[in-house]
Amino acid sequence: MVFQPSKYDQKLEFILRTAARIFAEKSYHSTSMRDISRETKVSLAGLYHYCKSKEELLFLIQDNCFGRVLERLEQQLQEVEDPVVKLNIFIENHLSFFAANMAEMKVLSHEAESLRGDLHAHVSTRKDNYTKLARKILQEVQESTQNKQLVDLTVATYALFGMINWIYNWYDPQGKLKVRDLAQHLTQLFLGGFSAGLVAGPVNVNALPRRRENLSIWRGTVS
Amino acid sequence: MVFQPSKYDQKLEFILRTAARIFAEKSYHSTSMRDISRETKVSLAGLYHYCKSKEELLFLIQDNCFGRVLERLEQQLQEVEDPVVKLNIFIENHLSFFAANMAEMKVLSHEAESLRGDLHAHVSTRKDNYTKLARKILQEVQESTQNKQLVDLTVATYALFGMINWIYNWYDPQGKLKVRDLAQHLTQLFLGGFSAGLVAGPVNVNALPRRRENLSIWRGTVS
Repeated sequence: MVFQPSKYDQKLEFILRTAARIFAEKSYHSTSMRDISRETKVSLAGLYHYCKSKEELLFLIQDNCFGRVLERLEQQLQEVEDPVVKLNIFIENHLSFFAANMAEMKVLSHEAESLRGDLHAHVSTRKDNYTKLARKILQEVQESTQNKQLVDLTVATYALFGMINWIYNWYDPQGKLKVRDLAQHLTQLFLGGFSAGLVAGPVNVNALPRRRENLSIWRGTVS
Repeated sequence: MVFQPSKYDQKLEFILRTAARIFAEKSYHSTSMRDISRETKVSLAGLYHYCKSKEELLFLIQDNCFGRVLERLEQQLQEVEDPVVKLNIFIENHLSFFAANMAEMKVLSHEAESLRGDLHAHVSTRKDNYTKLARKILQEVQESTQNKQLVDLTVATYALFGMINWIYNWYDPQGKLKVRDLAQHLTQLFLGGFSAGLVAGPVNVNALPRRRENLSIWRGTVS
């Protein structure tokens, strides 16, 4: 069955896509409904026909993103058993999805705390479910390996998200590096490391020379 | 020689530290000089004695951060030859510095584009120098290894920054995981991978099942 969006859905999606672009450019708080009206050429009254508020626009963008990336992932994971293949699918799905939605990705990252109350709770639950699924895949990979020098699972999960989310700061989907090659590089890097075979075990950073110091960027304090 | 900040410096740093916290909480654009005056209990006239504008505050925060993290790194790298030790020092310096300056880290990440003109150019140059130094260290690590399955250097550099910068989204410096242990986990993960020994070579993601589809989050389009 092919999804047939109604005229209403299409117009709402056009408004959301435009709003995501403006939020990414100048931040949610600095954007007014008037800005969105100007860019979409939809009157203010027209905008309020599609959504109650600017906050609802932000909610729909975030909720759609997490909903769809998770839905695509679950579809692709059906009947897959091998944990490493699952991890590959996770990374490739995340990168290809967000490379096609870079403005939305920036909005997810920068405006995570801009929603309040129930809307915030709803999106947080979606995000938690996505994070838990990633963590579960990593746990399966870990359990399937004989490698006993295990990296902490929480650190590894967030390190993975850091690697694949940071792309909105540097990656150009229109550039030479195709998203599937990016996915391959990052999967290889995450699983096998940057210099597999070079380092036998973890380097003991405690053995590095240390100075006692105040690490705060600000030297003095005034109360 | 111990740096002795003047009363003027101390007061300015207190203002900058407070401004960084407010920018991190509610964004640069949503913060007024009046907000900073209220939080610092320094009058508006007093604030303008220390800085010309809100933009200058943002500039000083960003410039101080990149300046000091780079300065600390260069000091620690003196007389170090081993590329892997250099990489360790880079990761540990970055994490310990920004774990002590989490609000500033968020401001660097979220407000990178909020400066304009010369101020933006000045901070960008500092950031470029820092990125180039990280890339150079990775290149040295790569050249010292026999591993011929090399990950692209640009991808590896940004993957590393993603891993170590993402901490402002999840890491609690006051929590159980000490920053030095975090550094050790991330160094191990980046160098040796999550499952070294498990994967002989890169998994061919092109072999994964694919659907042809529109990856944009938004299904329909209306021009």
